[in-house]
Amino acid sequence: MLSRYLPVLNWAKTYDGSTFSADAVAAVIVTVMLIPQSLAYALLAGLPPEVGLYASIAPLVIYTIFGTSMTLAVGPVAVASLMTASAIGEFAAVGSAEYLGAAIALAFLSGLILAAMGLMRLGFLSNFLSHPVISGFITASAFLIAFGQMKHILGVEVHGHTLLEQVGSLTQSASDTNLRTLAIGIAAIAFLVWARRSLSGLLVRMGLANDRAGAFAKAAPVVAIIVTTLAVWALKMDAQGVAVVGDIPRGLPRPSLPAFDPELWLSLLMPAFAIGLIGYVETISVAQTLAAKRRERIDPDQELIALGTANVGSAVSGGFPVTGGFSRSVVNFDAGARTPAAGAMTAMGIALATLFLTPLIFLLPKATLAATIIVAVLSLVEMKTLRTTWAYSKSDFAAMMGTILGTLALGVETGVAIGVLASLLLFLARTAKPHVAVVGRVPGTEHYRNVLRHKVETSPGVLSLRVDESLYFPNARHLEDTVNDAISADPEIKHVVLMCPAVNFIDTSALESLDQINHRLLDSGVKLHLSEVKGPVMDRLEKTEFLKHLSGRVFLSQYEADCKLRPS
Amino acid sequence: MLSRYLPVLNWAKTYDGSTFSADAVAAVIVTVMLIPQSLAYALLAGLPPEVGLYASIAPLVIYTIFGTSMTLAVGPVAVASLMTASAIGEFAAVGSAEYLGAAIALAFLSGLILAAMGLMRLGFLSNFLSHPVISGFITASAFLIAFGQMKHILGVEVHGHTLLEQVGSLTQSASDTNLRTLAIGIAAIAFLVWARRSLSGLLVRMGLANDRAGAFAKAAPVVAIIVTTLAVWALKMDAQGVAVVGDIPRGLPRPSLPAFDPELWLSLLMPAFAIGLIGYVETISVAQTLAAKRRERIDPDQELIALGTANVGSAVSGGFPVTGGFSRSVVNFDAGARTPAAGAMTAMGIALATLFLTPLIFLLPKATLAATIIVAVLSLVEMKTLRTTWAYSKSDFAAMMGTILGTLALGVETGVAIGVLASLLLFLARTAKPHVAVVGRVPGTEHYRNVLRHKVETSPGVLSLRVDESLYFPNARHLEDTVNDAISADPEIKHVVLMCPAVNFIDTSALESLDQINHRLLDSGVKLHLSEVKGPVMDRLEKTEFLKHLSGRVFLSQYEADCKLRPS
Repeated sequence: MLSRYLPVLNWAKTYDGSTFSADAVAAVIVTVMLIPQSLAYALLAGLPPEVGLYASIAPLVIYTIFGTSMTLAVGPVAVASLMTASAIGEFAAVGSAEYLGAAIALAFLSGLILAAMGLMRLGFLSNFLSHPVISGFITASAFLIAFGQMKHILGVEVHGHTLLEQVGSLTQSASDTNLRTLAIGIAAIAFLVWARRSLSGLLVRMGLANDRAGAFAKAAPVVAIIVTTLAVWALKMDAQGVAVVGDIPRGLPRPSLPAFDPELWLSLLMPAFAIGLIGYVETISVAQTLAAKRRERIDPDQELIALGTANVGSAVSGGFPVTGGFSRSVVNFDAGARTPAAGAMTAMGIALATLFLTPLIFLLPKATLAATIIVAVLSLVEMKTLRTTWAYSKSDFAAMMGTILGTLALGVETGVAIGVLASLLLFLARTAKPHVAVVGRVPGTEHYRNVLRHKVETSPGVLSLRVDESLYFPNARHLEDTVNDAISADPEIKHVVLMCPAVNFIDTSALESLDQINHRLLDSGVKLHLSEVKGPVMDRLEKTEFLKHLSGRVFLSQYEADCKLRPS
Repeated sequence: MLSRYLPVLNWAKTYDGSTFSADAVAAVIVTVMLIPQSLAYALLAGLPPEVGLYASIAPLVIYTIFGTSMTLAVGPVAVASLMTASAIGEFAAVGSAEYLGAAIALAFLSGLILAAMGLMRLGFLSNFLSHPVISGFITASAFLIAFGQMKHILGVEVHGHTLLEQVGSLTQSASDTNLRTLAIGIAAIAFLVWARRSLSGLLVRMGLANDRAGAFAKAAPVVAIIVTTLAVWALKMDAQGVAVVGDIPRGLPRPSLPAFDPELWLSLLMPAFAIGLIGYVETISVAQTLAAKRRERIDPDQELIALGTANVGSAVSGGFPVTGGFSRSVVNFDAGARTPAAGAMTAMGIALATLFLTPLIFLLPKATLAATIIVAVLSLVEMKTLRTTWAYSKSDFAAMMGTILGTLALGVETGVAIGVLASLLLFLARTAKPHVAVVGRVPGTEHYRNVLRHKVETSPGVLSLRVDESLYFPNARHLEDTVNDAISADPEIKHVVLMCPAVNFIDTSALESLDQINHRLLDSGVKLHLSEVKGPVMDRLEKTEFLKHLSGRVFLSQYEADCKLRPS
């Protein structure tokens, strides 16, 4: 029981020296990768750079204790940072103390919500974010994020709340572009794109193992940071209008609870829920993918608790919302991490960087961080998914396009809400008119298939219908219509058999409809039978009056029904 | 094509003398029953009595032309009248010209919405009103209606908008009770309850045929009206505080379009939709029940058009929202009506009554009409359904109680909205964690059943899972969890077979999950197979990359999969 809520107890007992050295190597590599990411995503969220570092310390230690994935790495990620900026931008000006306070409160609330959901085992709620909605949302967010960084690449100011206003503002101020800043930004983007495409292959040709090469290549942003920082220093570009990170307070944050502000907290509740849920979906999907590679087990409800407490920890230590990141977890995995202890060691690495490295990045140009963000998020754009979704399902495509357009035009939360609503409504519309097939026997077998698709034999006077859906309120009356139509079309019918292998449950409405069908058929001299009713469905039916009133019988198999009812 | 939208063309060509006399007899009986009902439901809607008569003329003629049921009788009904009063009470004072105008506009809008839905074949939308929600709503409405008539029985004034305020107001004014009014009310209720219980039996013992006796017994309200009107006249009770119907304008309404008031119409849109949809559900359910008795066919989408045009007709002729009534349709059926022509003849009967009988009901006491309403609606209360629903499904019971309490406490529209939302959410929560069974072969057969429920044989290294639900976004990741858990629990597994007889469709999210499962299993050295995939599902899968990447095979039957994969 205790080890269910504290998974650390499971793996800590067998922790040994060889596991430690594997974890330590992974931790060094992830630390190097995480420093620029933490700084960049803080910039994206509109927060001071050190907040990104704080959010990469306590959450990792807490996940080590509560997490069930052996390799997941939590911390600031792009989409959650965008959502943070969007949620708190309404309440405070970027750079103000209120803005930082709101970001901290957001992480705190988001964490409490996730942890509470985990304790109540409500993880399944995240499933209502369907793949097309998530994918559409992330694609749209990536565009928003990349566009939002253009101001740092050009070195100009951009105003306005909606995307349209910002595009207008950027076009106007483009003439003020700082050419040095632009040069740094373009060079950094070009280098990072090249590194992403070709560096890993180069390292392999230089003799590195495949997985290590991949992990090292992910450290390219560090190289970009060092080179551009040195360039700014050597050419004194900070005095020529190139925006730099500037002074970062040294030392670690002192833990403190966020100030309680009922009005603000109430307004942040929905954004906190949205950020938490979307972050959780990403987390669980990364964790499952990596766990499967080693046949490890993830507990989705415990992951809610782990991600929740990690966010609370982030808030208490002055950080902003965190999530399990895809690329950093893959790097952690490829670099050979074996337990969440690697995360705790990464946290130590970030803490050391916060203590001793911050003076060195005073001259780090913001354009380099913006370049890191742009290159990172553009890999999130899934244009291919649009095409494959269109080919596979028009209604999923509609939900996806609704999410993309909603997110771009109306903002991130509205976009997600539109997507979720659209996918629910489209599903319900689909399920309302289930596929019903008239079936007959495939000659020489005991198999029954659709008369329209196969050459089959039917018995005169017996109508066998296979309903390809659970019977519940959206389709209950449709079944009544179908049966009514069928028997009014053929006055010879004496028996109707509903074949139920695909009926997984029958709700009260459908039970009422079956009862109606039974009585109506009886009124017109036809008997109603059921066949192949599943165990759990039968258990329930046996509690009702329906079986007593049923004019016909319940047959174990359609073949048995056909044999007994066929006129001899 | 023409006869699809004008069903009258189908039956009119074979119309003959014997059909005419059958229809005429039924029309006389229904007319006698409909006069008091029309007056009473106008009173319930807070409208002048003649409006009830108007609503029983044009709609019946229109339904004769557009309706597909041979026996349905449309007109004012209790629940729609309550909803009318509730919807327009916000905009105008009872008795004002604006109030009547709003009622007419409501019927007009409701009719347009229904007709438009019929043309767009959106009848399935009505299915989202599940049986428990409808039943809970009608039970709660019946209480509201019966309570609302208490003021007429006591002869007092009642103020207040919410149920609680009205209860308080009634308690305060109970001391002003007019004893003569109360005496009439109680006597009428007692007589009507007796008639409902015993009159039909008495008539049968007096030699009447069963169905005719039932139809005649339904005319008891007419007897109550005649007797109490005579009593008021003989004892001059109208001068002693007994409220009577009073002067009713003679003559038929002149057709006119309702005045266009954009603001009012916009506010009435939702109520009009709700009244239309609930009326439609009642209509279609009565029509189906009666049609089945004679193997006749109902076209649900054409019924929307018929009910819609009937409501437009009601509005144009000065009436209020109408619906297919349950008891009057049964009387029409029992009295032998064969075609909708009976409805047109009933309309003629009501028109004659409007022209010549109205002076005779000047002294009709309102308490008698209130008694008719109370006795009629109390038969709508379904306490038994509460019990059976509780026994069959706790979540359906929750939706039902939500509707009842919502309707009583917050009003009719809010009540319905709560019920629909609750039933959707409860359904989605249920479907999110589908039943997944590990299956094995029933010895000596080719049948595969749940290993936990049956004594079955399984093959070592082969895990066969039967998923009892369509695979779509709310449960897609649950399947990933289930498969991950299963293979991490048993390192011996080499093959996973998903048996899919109950999988009726696979959406993009679930396809993505299957792809993930396939890759994750491959990573851990396990092959994924499918068996018993349905035709339509397979058609879709063949359009995707999934089958190319599938590490295993798609087997026609689970038996075939087991034979091929079993280690020999």
